[in-house]
Amino acid sequence: MKKIINAPEAYTDDMLRGIYRAHGDKVKYVNDDLRCYCTAKKKDGKVAIITGGGTGHLPLFLGYVGENLLDGCGVGGVFQSPSSEQIYNVSKEVEAGAGILYLYGNYTGDIMNFDMAAEMLEMDDIEVKSIVGADDVISNKDPALRRGVAGIFFMYKCAGAKAAEMGSLDEVLKAAEKAKVNTRTVGFALTPCIIPEIGHSNFTLEENEMAFGMGIHGEPGVWNGPVKTAKELAEEAVKEILDDMPVASGEEVAILINGLGATSLEELYILSGNVSEILDSKGIKIYRTFVGEYATSMEMAGASVSICRIADDEMKKWLDMPVDTPFYTQK
Amino acid sequence: MKKIINAPEAYTDDMLRGIYRAHGDKVKYVNDDLRCYCTAKKKDGKVAIITGGGTGHLPLFLGYVGENLLDGCGVGGVFQSPSSEQIYNVSKEVEAGAGILYLYGNYTGDIMNFDMAAEMLEMDDIEVKSIVGADDVISNKDPALRRGVAGIFFMYKCAGAKAAEMGSLDEVLKAAEKAKVNTRTVGFALTPCIIPEIGHSNFTLEENEMAFGMGIHGEPGVWNGPVKTAKELAEEAVKEILDDMPVASGEEVAILINGLGATSLEELYILSGNVSEILDSKGIKIYRTFVGEYATSMEMAGASVSICRIADDEMKKWLDMPVDTPFYTQK
Repeated sequence: MKKIINAPEAYTDDMLRGIYRAHGDKVKYVNDDLRCYCTAKKKDGKVAIITGGGTGHLPLFLGYVGENLLDGCGVGGVFQSPSSEQIYNVSKEVEAGAGILYLYGNYTGDIMNFDMAAEMLEMDDIEVKSIVGADDVISNKDPALRRGVAGIFFMYKCAGAKAAEMGSLDEVLKAAEKAKVNTRTVGFALTPCIIPEIGHSNFTLEENEMAFGMGIHGEPGVWNGPVKTAKELAEEAVKEILDDMPVASGEEVAILINGLGATSLEELYILSGNVSEILDSKGIKIYRTFVGEYATSMEMAGASVSICRIADDEMKKWLDMPVDTPFYTQK
Repeated sequence: MKKIINAPEAYTDDMLRGIYRAHGDKVKYVNDDLRCYCTAKKKDGKVAIITGGGTGHLPLFLGYVGENLLDGCGVGGVFQSPSSEQIYNVSKEVEAGAGILYLYGNYTGDIMNFDMAAEMLEMDDIEVKSIVGADDVISNKDPALRRGVAGIFFMYKCAGAKAAEMGSLDEVLKAAEKAKVNTRTVGFALTPCIIPEIGHSNFTLEENEMAFGMGIHGEPGVWNGPVKTAKELAEEAVKEILDDMPVASGEEVAILINGLGATSLEELYILSGNVSEILDSKGIKIYRTFVGEYATSMEMAGASVSICRIADDEMKKWLDMPVDTPFYTQK
């Protein structure tokens, strides 16, 4: 295992110490717990949006805490859920009088802990609503059982914008739902990644083998086989997405070409160009293109393609709203 | 070679096609040559700043073309210089009546081609001044012979800000010089990267071996040996930098913790925390911390540490000036 670390068991907390040192003007932690990650710029009367999940996916999850996005994040160990107490403590800190939206990925451990935190908050008479990202088309035929992956970015953007507009808790939830029903993602891995405390990867891929549809924790996909070209991968990803969520010629979409870690930005733009050409050929208009690392698996090589159908002009406004976090700034 | 590409020889142009498709509102190319990369938002009367260099280092070089930064970029093939004609054509497009600053890395091929382009422009009566980034401490004892690496970011920031303030060509050059004399970088690699058209890496590292001081094209460093901890690497990098450029207790610096490609953002923050602790212990104050991928070598694992001494308040203003490019936004 080649990593720039001090000790495998210190991975998450050393990372957090580095983040607070670098960005102490924008974020802070509460309850003497580094993993209770909160905005330092709480805004009274605004719906608080809280996310959370395992470490190893930066900038997901904590990287989206900031202006016009999220307010807090429960930070788990590598690929582990934060505890219900951590989520509760973050909630108590960032709650600003208008209720809380829990917005996180569709994973069993996270659901259990966010639900427990919500129950604790109910006893404090703080209103909480929850919604999970579940955009990974390949992970299940049933949309309710799908994993949440990079497409959660669009939910963050829409919900964050609606909250910044001082929408009510119901309105912020609806904004997240609008992004959710209109977003699909397909990903593929070229190499595994190594969990620091384990020290070896939990699956292997041969010299020229890739895994299509693989999850960001290495969950199996639809096929393993020789590495295909960017164009073939773009075609297969777009087909899987549009088979599941038809988009008519003339409609508009936003696309997110996300790197899983080791894949170069050069390759992501090659893939992005191919996805864009395919959508063009179908008469689908691209309103906005996002390319970069939005949801990673540490040093995994691979990428994902997300398509977000633009439902209305309000959604365009939300996607275009400037945001500013230590990890992601959009002007 | 596992890459998401269509054909090794199409790597650079396919990448560029993807970039123009994604960001056609902000950048364009001229002379029917994808590699003549120009801002789409030329500003009359402003000094034009032009950079250039090989592909494979995104967001370097072209990623810094945008608002309050650079105006154009000659794009070479992977790890190759752009041609003098390409640099000349970019220059003719973005020149806006106040002269041109060439600001690029200290590599022989680039120097030759930028100098030839400058000669061609002289015949057109367009004034050009040149300065090269040469921040890699390890690469040579003689500062004039050092390679340019990630620290060029600080030169871009300062020169770009001064040009945005409508400074004269001499003033913009001086701003770049101020950043140059106050910036040093030390990098290290944990894995090599593969040039698409070659298909294998030009050096190898053993299972637990790293290369300290290695250049971003795989140029040899000071030692190869077992992978050290983040803290040890931070100490060695800071020592090399401060031995070369003393910074007194009480002085302020900006730091840039740059990922070379495959290294996770989590690790970069671990390293950043350690660098920050060391500077703290010396009484050196960190004015601003930049962490992320600023100058890469495709999928190379590794990182670099840059320290930029804050010479005066003007430099703080330049470092804090908002910038916006398709690849890098600072609010």
